[in-house]
Amino acid sequence: MPNATAIDAVVIDDEAALSTPFVKCLVRLMRAQDSYGSWEGKSDAELLADFIVTKGQRREIPIIGDPDPDVLWRLDIFYAAVGLAIDERSGLMASPMMKISHEGFGRVILTAGRLVVLAKSLRDVHRFGFETFQKLADAGAKLVDDAVAAIEAHLDVARA
Amino acid sequence: MPNATAIDAVVIDDEAALSTPFVKCLVRLMRAQDSYGSWEGKSDAELLADFIVTKGQRREIPIIGDPDPDVLWRLDIFYAAVGLAIDERSGLMASPMMKISHEGFGRVILTAGRLVVLAKSLRDVHRFGFETFQKLADAGAKLVDDAVAAIEAHLDVARA
Repeated sequence: MPNATAIDAVVIDDEAALSTPFVKCLVRLMRAQDSYGSWEGKSDAELLADFIVTKGQRREIPIIGDPDPDVLWRLDIFYAAVGLAIDERSGLMASPMMKISHEGFGRVILTAGRLVVLAKSLRDVHRFGFETFQKLADAGAKLVDDAVAAIEAHLDVARA
Repeated sequence: MPNATAIDAVVIDDEAALSTPFVKCLVRLMRAQDSYGSWEGKSDAELLADFIVTKGQRREIPIIGDPDPDVLWRLDIFYAAVGLAIDERSGLMASPMMKISHEGFGRVILTAGRLVVLAKSLRDVHRFGFETFQKLADAGAKLVDDAVAAIEAHLDVARA
């Protein structure tokens, strides 16, 4: 049954992705905002479902569009999770600042002390999302790795 | 005529303030946004008039209030002028990022390369302003001086 095996493989990949340090930070931040306990019965995968935008879904989103509050919230919490994961790894809190035009273009930077640990231009924010949980985990981990490397290279500035 | 002398002294102070490098940057940025030439007939002092909030005026502004678009624009251009003045002094462009809640609290940072050259909490933004041109000039010059000192202390990071 090659199909079942393929599906099993995807599920195993998802589980691996969901247990990476970055994705765990993301889930913790999301659950911390669940003031009314309405997500208590939800699995981590269900909680993160809206971060997944498959190729098919992406095709259906207009190329130009204004980001809605939900996608801006996901973007916010994604970079807050990057900051939290940086903190776990380096012991230094990295706080994000984001500026997005109403058309979905902008910039995000994370700083620790006097160091810019991450700076990134953002575009097409209304289509923000990842094809799979694995790609979500990889994207977060890459940003955290780069930021931690920058901190290690300029520790005095990051502690200033 | 002690009164006339006092007024003369104020005018001379104003002229000195208006010819400082920071205030000149501010005026240049404002004139650059004057797409329709509607401010061409205005003096620099007239152009900057809304940056001045006297003690009496400040007392009349409610302690808590939502900043209007005009005051947010002045805040934006003030920090953009700080960035431009830093560029003039150090040769490194410092770009501002600002995040203000609708209630007028927030944070502004200016970065050059990987260096945070200025970071400042903002509050009571709806009352943003300076008592005199001299105080406007001093506040800007102080921010520029501190930022340039930070750049000189961490030149490699600012150039990264």
